[in-house]
This record gives sequence, C-alpha cells and structure tokens, in this order.
Amino acid sequence: MNNKSSLLIRDIGEQGLLKKLQPFCIPGMVGDDAAVLETDPHRSLVITTDVLVDGVHFSDRTTTPADVGWRAVAANLSDLAAMGASPLGITVGLSIPGNLTVSWVESLYQGMSACLQQYQTGIVGGDICRSEGISIAITAFGQVFPTQIIKRSSAQPGDAIVATGCHGASRAGLELLLHPEIGQQLSDREKSYLIQTHQRPKPRLDVLPIIWEIFNSDSAIRIAGMDSSDGLADAIAQICHASSVGAKIDRNLIPIPPTLPKLTSAEQALNWALYGGEDFELVLCLPLEKAQPLVERLGNYAAIIGTITKDLEILLVDPTQVDHQQVLLLSKGFQHF
Amino acid sequence: MNNKSSLLIRDIGEQGLLKKLQPFCIPGMVGDDAAVLETDPHRSLVITTDVLVDGVHFSDRTTTPADVGWRAVAANLSDLAAMGASPLGITVGLSIPGNLTVSWVESLYQGMSACLQQYQTGIVGGDICRSEGISIAITAFGQVFPTQIIKRSSAQPGDAIVATGCHGASRAGLELLLHPEIGQQLSDREKSYLIQTHQRPKPRLDVLPIIWEIFNSDSAIRIAGMDSSDGLADAIAQICHASSVGAKIDRNLIPIPPTLPKLTSAEQALNWALYGGEDFELVLCLPLEKAQPLVERLGNYAAIIGTITKDLEILLVDPTQVDHQQVLLLSKGFQHF
Repeated sequence: MNNKSSLLIRDIGEQGLLKKLQPFCIPGMVGDDAAVLETDPHRSLVITTDVLVDGVHFSDRTTTPADVGWRAVAANLSDLAAMGASPLGITVGLSIPGNLTVSWVESLYQGMSACLQQYQTGIVGGDICRSEGISIAITAFGQVFPTQIIKRSSAQPGDAIVATGCHGASRAGLELLLHPEIGQQLSDREKSYLIQTHQRPKPRLDVLPIIWEIFNSDSAIRIAGMDSSDGLADAIAQICHASSVGAKIDRNLIPIPPTLPKLTSAEQALNWALYGGEDFELVLCLPLEKAQPLVERLGNYAAIIGTITKDLEILLVDPTQVDHQQVLLLSKGFQHF
Repeated sequence: MNNKSSLLIRDIGEQGLLKKLQPFCIPGMVGDDAAVLETDPHRSLVITTDVLVDGVHFSDRTTTPADVGWRAVAANLSDLAAMGASPLGITVGLSIPGNLTVSWVESLYQGMSACLQQYQTGIVGGDICRSEGISIAITAFGQVFPTQIIKRSSAQPGDAIVATGCHGASRAGLELLLHPEIGQQLSDREKSYLIQTHQRPKPRLDVLPIIWEIFNSDSAIRIAGMDSSDGLADAIAQICHASSVGAKIDRNLIPIPPTLPKLTSAEQALNWALYGGEDFELVLCLPLEKAQPLVERLGNYAAIIGTITKDLEILLVDPTQVDHQQVLLLSKGFQHF
C-alpha cells in the first residue's frame, strides 16, 4: 500500500475530507447550511442533511430517545431557518441494531414528530436498515423566495451582527446533566430552563416573518447569516470567511443567560457562549437601520453584538478596558474524527 | 421493564417497525418509492431516501467502494424513475469510522459521481460523521408533472404487466463473484455482462421519455409501477397490494438472461429472476394498447409478462402445461433484521 491510499480519515480530519469531496459535488451548491435548487421561477427548494451517531452526538446519559429525535429535527430546521427557508418536510434514514427495543425507536419518532408539529411540517419518507450502532440521517426540505435567501457570503463592512438569543445555555444544560452538583445555587426553574434548552432546542424559524416585515419595502433582502449550532464563534468565523470580511465583537454585548455566573466563572461562561455550540440561534449580518428594529421586535435576549469590518481579523473586544482585545480562537469548536 | 418496552426490532421485523412508525409520518406521503411534495402548481417535487450499511448491503469481497457508490446512487435514481420523476440532485449522509482510508471514501464518491453524471445530475449537499461502521444515507430529489406521476396504486384489471428488461442477471453476477467456478461454461464477455449488471446497475430513467411519447395525446398518464430492486415478485406483489388487484404472470414470458441456463438449473434461474432483486428494472401496469408500443420501443428484453386481474391472487402460470399454476411466494425477498 502506498502512502496516499493508507491515509486515514483521522489523519486529515473532517474539514480535510470535505475539501477532498467537494470536487465531486455540483460547484456552488455546497458550502452553505443547505443546498438551494431551482424548481420554478418563483420559489427555490432548500435541502439540508445531518447525520447523528450514538456515542458521538448523543448518549443515554444525557438524552432520552425522544430528545434525540427532537434535537435531530431541530438541527435540520435550524439549517433551513439559517437559509431563510420555510420547511416542507423531512426524510429519515435510520441505521439501528437488531437488538434495540421498539420503544426506543418509537420514542425517537415521537420526539421528531413533536418538534415537526411545532413548525407545521412532518416526515415525508425514509429508510431503515440494520447496523452495529445507531445512526440517524435526516434530510430536510424547505422553500424560499430567491430574493429572500440568507447566505453566509453577503456580509458587508459596516453591517451590524445580530445574535437572535442567548448563547451558552445549551452547554450549561449539558454540564448540569453531567454534573448536577454544580447547580446548587440555581432554583429548579432555572435548572430546568437550561436543561430544556439543551434537550429541546428551538430552531428560530419564527425570526423569518419578522425579517420579511422589516425588509418589506425592499425589492430584495440583503442579509448574511447562519445558525450557531457549532458555536457562536464558529458562526461569526464562517460568515466572515465566506464574505471575505472581518468582525469586531463586543464581549459585553454577547447575550449570556443571567444564571450562568451562578454556575461557573465569568470567563468560562463566555467560553460556553462562544464555543459551547448547539444554541441553534441565528447569527445575522445586516445594515444597522434594519438590525435595530429586528432586535427590538425579537425581544428577549436578541442583541447587536458587533460590527462587520473590512479588516479580515475577528476581534473580541472589551471597550470598558483599555487595550483589551483578543483575536477569536476558532479551534475550540466541535470537530469529528 | 414491561413486555412492550422490551420488544426488540428483530421481534417485529422491518415491516412491523415501518407500520409502527407510519402514524408519525404525514398521511398519504409514505408508501410509494418516494415522497411527492407540491412546490408549485406546475411541478411536483419527488424525494427518496436509502440507507446502505457495510456488511448488510455490500462487502469488500464483491464490491469495490466505487461500485458501492454507483449502486447507492443507482438505487435512489431508480426510485425516482419508478415515480416517473427526473432527477434534480442527491444529498449524502455518511457515517464512517476514523480508521477508514481517505481513498476508500474518495472511491465511493467517484462511483457516485460517475453514476450521477450518466444522468446529468449531482450531489447537492451532505454530512459526514464518525461511527463504528460504515453507513451511507442518500436522499435523491426529482421533479415530475403531476399528470405524469407513476404510483403503485393505480393498476386496473386488464392492464398488461411490463418488465422493462432482464431479471436474474444481478443475482447471477453476485453468484459469479462469490463462486467463480460456476461460470466455467460462460465466455469472459458473458461473465463480465452479468457481473457488470450486479456492480453497475442502470436505473431506467431512459424509459420515461418513451412513456411520455406514447401517452402524448392523453391528458394524463394512467400507469402503475415501481422498480424491481427488491425482486420482480416483490414489485408485482406491492403493486397488487396497493391497487387491490391480483395478477397472472406467465413464467415463460419473464425475461431471463439467455446465459443463465449455463450457470444453473431452469428452476433456480427463475427463482433468481423472481426473488434475486437488484435488477433495478421497472415493473409497469398499463393498458395493453400502450404496453405493446412501449415494449417495442424499449427493445432488448422488455416484455409483457402477464395481466392484472380482479381476483386478488397472484398466480405464476405455465400455459404450456395443463394445471400448472402456483401462487407466487413473496417471503423470499430480502428482509432486514
């Protein structure tokens, strides 16, 4: 065996593998949260796929099968929301061992179904197959008017950067499940909020009609964005990379659940918000005059957290302290292999 | 644990599990080869998903990774063809172990790509994830004019049953790969044809334009059908079940590769044709006056193999022998778990 053919997946990692596989894909189709297909002159079809594997994305310790189902669907619907698309349906490709209980699979589908119903959509097909471990491949389809597509690549210097909600809550919920003892200072309600955020995340499809309303008089929506499923820092970095711009983020403006300081240090809370992932909020870049009414309409913890810059660096700054700025680290995000 | 929650997948089998999961799916969407979604008044979107697992659907002994890729795509495009739909693209959800070689995955994508190019379509997205074994979930999308959808449920008594090509060739190819010694009486060309049919099956998308031409003057196409990926007998049975009809098949009219008698007994050859599966031909039910020109235009081994009957039984008859008819056995098809 020569060197090339003995190269392993773990040698090059997920990004390296994706790079190697990109030439096999239709140019321009891969690189956003979902693929956009033209079916007719008026609407674009949006498609996204996620694979969840037992022991990698979920474990019996922190997630019931119903929660696994909810989260799997939520992740896909979040990708649709990140493209500006309304869901049409999903398909489910399930690989499961023969000695799994039927009730486990039923609970999984109950969780998927519960999440889908919340967004007036459903399962439209699928396939089930025997395998050693559990693997769930979901493909979701949505549609969007071509003038309303949200892409990663259209951010412009001067744009305000909006986070549609809290970050760090999902990671805090996971920590509470793994180490219940850290939650002694939290009320049951506070604990349950964080855990619920981790187990039953809500894709932000509700943000779309508000965007459409705010851009109502415009012929096309100029808005860049993606979801923060892989972390807030990752989302900002991906948008900056795709748009060939940089960003300046004010660390004091990042919306963090007010209960987090009762759980951990301020520095750690910020780390969870930046790198924890799975908050499934949207990170949007748009002109300030549109961002302000958006944040007002969204309410809760929606916030303008920074500005897109011409300079390619992504800076995390603290305007309350002189000379306090750091370059955002992006290597802390979740990596397969 | 009570009895219900300890019930295993293998206890109820694939069909039992599917039945249990159907209530979670949008009514009327599941049950055909693919889901049809209305995106606009003129075109319907068609979606199909297949999961392939290492050790279940393929093995290194008989299939190279490139062939695995080709076959995975071919199976999905065949499902589109079976609905009367033209392909728009596919997504790929890949679960693979970290110690797999990169070249294995590249070969897989090369095979997928080669098949997709043959039908002027491509990969539009996907996801890759670490797991213990290899699992490939493909979702394919196509479009069809609503008046040209091919369903399983529209067969009517009196319809001619058409097989668009040979059956049993794929199974013969597999046997040749597993037991090369049985091919002593075959020329290299004959062997390579059978093996190629197994490794690189051709989805019959080419049949669709011929159907459209034959039905040209009609306002809508009345044609029932599905593909024979799970065997010819299974396809006939599924159509009969969905249409609440029966069928009478003439065993002498089933197109079997002429080389098969050199490999095995006549009875075994018929078994391979009926139950072997993976021939990826179409089984179509339509009025005789349309079936005749269809079979003529298709040529090769396309044939009218029987008739749809009012009586619900599916009979395999031999008109050359008195009293020779048997009820088609359907339990020989491939079953997971």
